[in-house]
Amino acid sequence: MSADRSQPARTVIEKLSRIPGIGSKSAQRIAFFLLKQDPRFVNDLISAIRDFRENTIFCSSCNNITLEDPCYICADPRRDRSTICIVEEPYNVISLEKTAHYNGLYHVLHGNLSPLKGIGPDELRLDNLIPRLGTGAVKELIIATSPTTEGNATAHYIHEIFKKHPIRITRIALGLPIGSDIDYVDSLTISKALEDRTEFN
Amino acid sequence: MSADRSQPARTVIEKLSRIPGIGSKSAQRIAFFLLKQDPRFVNDLISAIRDFRENTIFCSSCNNITLEDPCYICADPRRDRSTICIVEEPYNVISLEKTAHYNGLYHVLHGNLSPLKGIGPDELRLDNLIPRLGTGAVKELIIATSPTTEGNATAHYIHEIFKKHPIRITRIALGLPIGSDIDYVDSLTISKALEDRTEFN
Repeated sequence: MSADRSQPARTVIEKLSRIPGIGSKSAQRIAFFLLKQDPRFVNDLISAIRDFRENTIFCSSCNNITLEDPCYICADPRRDRSTICIVEEPYNVISLEKTAHYNGLYHVLHGNLSPLKGIGPDELRLDNLIPRLGTGAVKELIIATSPTTEGNATAHYIHEIFKKHPIRITRIALGLPIGSDIDYVDSLTISKALEDRTEFN
Repeated sequence: MSADRSQPARTVIEKLSRIPGIGSKSAQRIAFFLLKQDPRFVNDLISAIRDFRENTIFCSSCNNITLEDPCYICADPRRDRSTICIVEEPYNVISLEKTAHYNGLYHVLHGNLSPLKGIGPDELRLDNLIPRLGTGAVKELIIATSPTTEGNATAHYIHEIFKKHPIRITRIALGLPIGSDIDYVDSLTISKALEDRTEFN
């Protein structure tokens, strides 16, 4: 292959490898996998990506991705409107919904505070959370950002903003994951699990 | 190598591979690593194993492994005698001590309830825990068994035995491990983290 003829391959590999989690090796494997597929499969994939990109909007109430505004969760009359769970990304909503243990509403920040990545308070989608609390229907904000440095900073920032509101502010529990062996859990998590120990019942 | 001459290798590999966590491949690697070492290193290793095996006894109070009875933790006047943390194995004590966040005493069960492995209540070393509570000095039992099926069964069993005593019985927190991304945590853990959410402060 001359340099010229390999241009399309190099372009697709370069574009694919810009996706987080896809390294240049994976990008190469994906590109050559696609090359061997039925053209119909590739066309369907392209359409799916285009449709997703073009038809997805954000719920004006909770910022989740949706085809219609408000999203199906905000529009569902069976959801408990007294609780809002604050998450980093739309895919966290999917994780929480999978548990089938949460029946409240969500608020999606689309990121975490991260001075290193230049993400400050203005970049978080919090502006539309304040009016949601104005009605008095909301009794609890559950902060479900990840227990990472950035997720913790975000949680503290949100607590600072809302601590004067007459609502309960909680955070999802930190501790040992279900099924884990205490011997394979890091010291920080064990410390936190001891500190936040719960009454046995 | 004839079958006869490879016998010592096969024997050591077979013995090593009976150790939990060492598969036959690892056993082979360890055996041939030892073969290449200085004889002094191998003798020191053998002495260390023999000393450990011959000189280690169990603390009559907490069942932890020790060279002297009572163990250095039970004997330490600076430890808080009002709290006993119940763990499965002696190496769990090491994990908890590493956190430097616990200053109470321990009680080592040397196992978990496991009908499948034939481990019933009589196999757990609980008999010497009851007299420890008799003095009235102990105010709290922290159950730190792993959040596995067997660890949970053990925790419930211990709670059943002691729930009528006038002491607080707690369990270390279950939830998201520190530093984890919520998106990589299993549904059961997320459910438990939601259920056990803590007040933000």
